[in-house]
Amino acid sequence: MKQVETSRKIIRVTGNKVEKMEDTIVTEYAVTVKLNGEELVTMVCTPEYIEDMVIGYLASEGIIRSYKHIKDIWVQEKEGFVHVTTDRTNPYIQNFQNKRYITSCCGMSRQGFVFVNDALTAKKMEDVNIRLTVNECNQLMEQLQASATTFKQTGGVHSAALCDKNGILLSRMDIGRHNALDKIYGYSLREGISMKGKIIVFTGRISSEILLKVAKIGCEMILSKSAPTEFALRSAEELGITTVGFIRNGNMNIYTYPERILL
Amino acid sequence: MKQVETSRKIIRVTGNKVEKMEDTIVTEYAVTVKLNGEELVTMVCTPEYIEDMVIGYLASEGIIRSYKHIKDIWVQEKEGFVHVTTDRTNPYIQNFQNKRYITSCCGMSRQGFVFVNDALTAKKMEDVNIRLTVNECNQLMEQLQASATTFKQTGGVHSAALCDKNGILLSRMDIGRHNALDKIYGYSLREGISMKGKIIVFTGRISSEILLKVAKIGCEMILSKSAPTEFALRSAEELGITTVGFIRNGNMNIYTYPERILL
Repeated sequence: MKQVETSRKIIRVTGNKVEKMEDTIVTEYAVTVKLNGEELVTMVCTPEYIEDMVIGYLASEGIIRSYKHIKDIWVQEKEGFVHVTTDRTNPYIQNFQNKRYITSCCGMSRQGFVFVNDALTAKKMEDVNIRLTVNECNQLMEQLQASATTFKQTGGVHSAALCDKNGILLSRMDIGRHNALDKIYGYSLREGISMKGKIIVFTGRISSEILLKVAKIGCEMILSKSAPTEFALRSAEELGITTVGFIRNGNMNIYTYPERILL
Repeated sequence: MKQVETSRKIIRVTGNKVEKMEDTIVTEYAVTVKLNGEELVTMVCTPEYIEDMVIGYLASEGIIRSYKHIKDIWVQEKEGFVHVTTDRTNPYIQNFQNKRYITSCCGMSRQGFVFVNDALTAKKMEDVNIRLTVNECNQLMEQLQASATTFKQTGGVHSAALCDKNGILLSRMDIGRHNALDKIYGYSLREGISMKGKIIVFTGRISSEILLKVAKIGCEMILSKSAPTEFALRSAEELGITTVGFIRNGNMNIYTYPERILL
């Protein structure tokens, strides 16, 4: 079975103390469900209880009504497939495959599915156009949180901001993590904002999709209050992006390309 | 413009103090993007900067390469549509519409799209099979958090548990909120577990999709450490589900069907 977490060397900043240490990072696993031979959906998940997850998903989507409708289920783990045979063809599936729906907590993305190609074709950030001190990282996160009034009142939204060294240029919030970044990306495209020397500051978790979005927007650094996943960090390494997480109370973890952080 | 938050009467429990008060709840807004007359995607979001969000999404998915590819964009707000005209047909879109991809932070769901129908056809929980004291709610949340070792180490996953009055029966974690619940649902179907008197305890935000999943699983109560959205609470009212949020340090907010909580 694949591991649900892995270990990784990071730079931990605790107040004025800087140390290299081993940290535990959660893994991401992409699994594609094939229903009666046809590709149905790709899910990104933590690699345990995969079979139950797929059964629950099929029931939740109304594709099966009870467990007895499943004639066979087989997890082809290494290749990342789950093969499901059901005892009937649900007419609902036809519609299902022609609709896309993005819930509030994400943007699902076919891009994500071809992520490896994306990562290889996306332009690597070779240059270092920006260097931040630890103190500047803390200040940007504080500014983002101070600006997020709805979050403080309702506890229900994520915030993202486009910043430069001097502070926040643009901040957006949304119940969906991806939406907050899309709002920044759309504005920047519309207004023709150059991304040179710009940083994304974010309250949400850094998954591989979020990291890829940052690369597409064209920023060379992401600062977050939350944790990254292992796959996001591997992508950040490929793409030349500095990733800093767990920025809380003056502490932070530097995961990739620490040369943009002045220690 | 639609409001990004709304006000609502809740019961707030602070230690031994119980009071009725007005609370601020974040709203959810579903918007469907029509690209050159064809339905492309439905996004659930916070209702502001919708146009930017759609531009950013289209660029992020590679459907447009720059802002100048958009010839027209029009937000039909009340009806929940964004009509986009681009200057070319991207061959990529054809593939795009035949693939489904679920990122780690959610299960997207066509079901969500027909949510109102779902809510009307789903069986309302008329009975009260369970009553919990405030203390029992706190204990269940503490047990869930104590069991979530990966979360403590990595900060990167959500936990969900199926419980009864006496404690946790089954707990699952995942980087995707929906996946954690699907793992519980799948196991319960497979093992034929009765949902009478069962509770879902959860670390993540209660969006409408999560609430609907709880209803499909067949539980009459959800307890969470995080915030609910307004749409989730309206759905909970329709479906007869008790919703308790912000369970932290002995405090909590009771949003719907408080009769199942002994004050």
